[in-house]
Amino acid sequence: MQKGLEKEETEGEKGNYEIKMENKAVVLKMEKGLEEVAEARDGGRKHQFVLKTPKGTRDYNPLQMAVREKVFNTITGCFKRHGAETIDTPVFELKETLTGKYGEDAKLIYDLKDQGGEMLSLRYDLTVPFARYLAMYNITNIKRYQIGKVYRRDNPGLGRYREFYQCDFDIAGKYDNMVPDAECLKIIYEILSELELGDFCIKVNDRRILEGMFDLCGVPKDKFCTICSSVDKMDKLSWSDVKNEIMEKGVSEEVADQIGKYVKMKGGIDLVELLLRDTEMCKSDQIRAGLTDLKELFNYLQIFQVTDKVLCDLSLARGLDYYTGVIYEAVLIQAGTAVAQEKTASTGSVAGGGRYDNLVGKISSKDRQVPCVGVSIGMERIFSIMEAKANSVRTTEVQVMVVSAQKNLLEERLRLTAELWTAGIKAQTEYKRNPKYLNQVQYCVRSGIPLAAILGEQELTDGVVKLCTVVTNEEAEAHGSKSNLIKEAYVSRSDLIKEIRRRTSEA
Amino acid sequence: MQKGLEKEETEGEKGNYEIKMENKAVVLKMEKGLEEVAEARDGGRKHQFVLKTPKGTRDYNPLQMAVREKVFNTITGCFKRHGAETIDTPVFELKETLTGKYGEDAKLIYDLKDQGGEMLSLRYDLTVPFARYLAMYNITNIKRYQIGKVYRRDNPGLGRYREFYQCDFDIAGKYDNMVPDAECLKIIYEILSELELGDFCIKVNDRRILEGMFDLCGVPKDKFCTICSSVDKMDKLSWSDVKNEIMEKGVSEEVADQIGKYVKMKGGIDLVELLLRDTEMCKSDQIRAGLTDLKELFNYLQIFQVTDKVLCDLSLARGLDYYTGVIYEAVLIQAGTAVAQEKTASTGSVAGGGRYDNLVGKISSKDRQVPCVGVSIGMERIFSIMEAKANSVRTTEVQVMVVSAQKNLLEERLRLTAELWTAGIKAQTEYKRNPKYLNQVQYCVRSGIPLAAILGEQELTDGVVKLCTVVTNEEAEAHGSKSNLIKEAYVSRSDLIKEIRRRTSEA
Repeated sequence: MQKGLEKEETEGEKGNYEIKMENKAVVLKMEKGLEEVAEARDGGRKHQFVLKTPKGTRDYNPLQMAVREKVFNTITGCFKRHGAETIDTPVFELKETLTGKYGEDAKLIYDLKDQGGEMLSLRYDLTVPFARYLAMYNITNIKRYQIGKVYRRDNPGLGRYREFYQCDFDIAGKYDNMVPDAECLKIIYEILSELELGDFCIKVNDRRILEGMFDLCGVPKDKFCTICSSVDKMDKLSWSDVKNEIMEKGVSEEVADQIGKYVKMKGGIDLVELLLRDTEMCKSDQIRAGLTDLKELFNYLQIFQVTDKVLCDLSLARGLDYYTGVIYEAVLIQAGTAVAQEKTASTGSVAGGGRYDNLVGKISSKDRQVPCVGVSIGMERIFSIMEAKANSVRTTEVQVMVVSAQKNLLEERLRLTAELWTAGIKAQTEYKRNPKYLNQVQYCVRSGIPLAAILGEQELTDGVVKLCTVVTNEEAEAHGSKSNLIKEAYVSRSDLIKEIRRRTSEA
Repeated sequence: MQKGLEKEETEGEKGNYEIKMENKAVVLKMEKGLEEVAEARDGGRKHQFVLKTPKGTRDYNPLQMAVREKVFNTITGCFKRHGAETIDTPVFELKETLTGKYGEDAKLIYDLKDQGGEMLSLRYDLTVPFARYLAMYNITNIKRYQIGKVYRRDNPGLGRYREFYQCDFDIAGKYDNMVPDAECLKIIYEILSELELGDFCIKVNDRRILEGMFDLCGVPKDKFCTICSSVDKMDKLSWSDVKNEIMEKGVSEEVADQIGKYVKMKGGIDLVELLLRDTEMCKSDQIRAGLTDLKELFNYLQIFQVTDKVLCDLSLARGLDYYTGVIYEAVLIQAGTAVAQEKTASTGSVAGGGRYDNLVGKISSKDRQVPCVGVSIGMERIFSIMEAKANSVRTTEVQVMVVSAQKNLLEERLRLTAELWTAGIKAQTEYKRNPKYLNQVQYCVRSGIPLAAILGEQELTDGVVKLCTVVTNEEAEAHGSKSNLIKEAYVSRSDLIKEIRRRTSEA
């Protein structure tokens, strides 16, 4: 019988039930990168062009959106649990607002065409717009999150996009040392745990330790940012590659080797305490200040019970210019690799952030300082991991399909569907006048709609609806049923809403 | 005592509790359009620039975001109730994808600067990207919604922005005539009712009726779109202004007067039936087709019980080129103005849409037609109405503030707060080592945090927490209490979570 059904579907009329199939087609096409040729009329002349999204961007189909919504709900749930407010800023800023904030990366900023008026650029991250917001409205204290797309004209590749989401959580304001910083790490810990992405490690360092270290090694001050951005590649490149890059930037081999000695250090609170006893390092005020703060940070992290995933890693540098104190980055660990001491076989960074105490002052006219610390969650990598794990994600939340058993019942189906909508029940019916009964049932099975409300002439005469629970073929078999509809019951129209609520809350 | 408190706050240390005040400052600044001068470093040279968002764009502060989230939840709730899936597309498209779709409005499209590579434009609406999506993945059936910002280089003004949200709901696919169209109107009806924006009216017309009418009046076919876009202004301009605009477009006064006669017609299903009996009008196949469809539409609208707000209005034209059949627009009615027949004193359109059966075919290489009908909700006007009505909207969802009664309890407060987070309770504590007790309580009152969990030396020794319900001054007075904390109870640490859940579900 199931065989017959499938045949009828493929040959039968085309209806709603095709949507699922097309989701798969979309994924396939997205994966294969197939391109369609389209036509456009330009001043009357027809010309062909490739039908695609711009380089480095993507569409999200309903299946991908369902995963995305789940991820966003987990993340915003965490931000809200921590009492954060949320703000939004425009997708573009005055070009000048972004100028001088991103160092070497500024070349990756998208500019808008000069069509008269202001010079505009698409935002590169959510941090500079946040600092602009604080400066513009003279805000001195806020704990806020923001979710939005940011834009970088980078080389797109495996899981890397030119348009991508960031979820940022930042705490602005003068508070007791390291308390907001510890909360940012706690946030990363909670989100990565809740998303069940597998084991992870949060690397911690401090910009002042790096600065002091480079200073001790003999790196000139004006090369600090550029050497940071080379050292930051140590999770992707081997040390010898990084060393070459550093030397190309005009640092001698001896100095580079000295840097190499330091940046290989990794450990927990024990490493921090060890280094605090190192008289050589502690000659540097900056290193001492950074280490003292890290020790205090670990104290709060112990209270928050997250130290099992935190690793002090002196090679962590972070690419962006604006960090001034503690910095951190979370990486996912492939199964079977130990976290501490060993080289971590990471699948890449999924969150990062740090303290940036000078950015608001740099933007504000009054050189008013607003110390900030924050974290940014890298969504694209998380989406793709979650997508790969998602098996039977539904793309709608429909609870009841209103099905007709006979012809010419479209209006009656619409009437019942509208009654369900009014009661707040998520309901759907086939738009066609005379859809095939089995097609309607199969649509429920494929879409995971849990209930079918069946109308026929007799039901209408009797003022009842035949309410059924929809099950998969496997479940039907286990239930000893040959049909995908079980627990059939005639329910009076007046009791229907109550009965639907009862059955859906049961599931 | 309250007086003393206020004094202490203004003089006391600055903490979290300032956030609310700053929200107000943000609103004030947004309203006044105050501008700050900022500094930027450009190649080492420092120069000043105005600290602002780009022309026609806005920031959303936490209060505005709380309102926005509420509106979005209502709208997506409705879309989901109707079984819609959701998709997302990039904020920019290939320039060619948008070319030739918007008629006269194309000049308002934002282009990106040519930085090498593809020529890109910011999306002007969500409809053309949706049609591109359908064409690109060969999708023939989908009911989807999409929420996103769109961009128009229009003159910004009262409630009009260059970056603004659209919430679109569209049904693509070949279905029984007028059923999806009726569902779009039902969606508008449900959303506007649920948002409680006041009385509203949904005007309906059909592009074929307009085309047939203009034809009967003697308007040349190539002037159809441009005359539509003039007639579409009849809700903002007087007929004589519209008439002048039409004549400036090269139409004689006699023809313009003829148009004027038709476009003043308004009414319910009775008007449609009346016109269907008008032999003069029904000579036009197009008018007859449009009217017949409207009659069928009204039939389904009666089943959906929404005809009380629907008005057939022959002046409704809609600006965009791509509509091919039924079109509609919802306007809010100011109190005391009758809907039917009279000129409606509307505060402007809040939703609009229609049928566009040729757009996908125009984009697709294969001239494959995918009939579509949809609705777009205009968010900005809805936001500002909801904002004006929002009194005591909270910007966070914090359930418990962990308060210390004595000094040096920061770590104990952090420990308890982390325990609450682990239990999924939204909790917060002051980041300062030694915040003033009354400041912490006042922060709860201002932020609407319903519970305070108070820790002191004695509570720690006894293994308990003093749990209190936070009330406003008015509520305290009504309760015969001089304090903002009532229902004080010592709860053991092991019972705390349960007790917090009990109290918060009570409220």
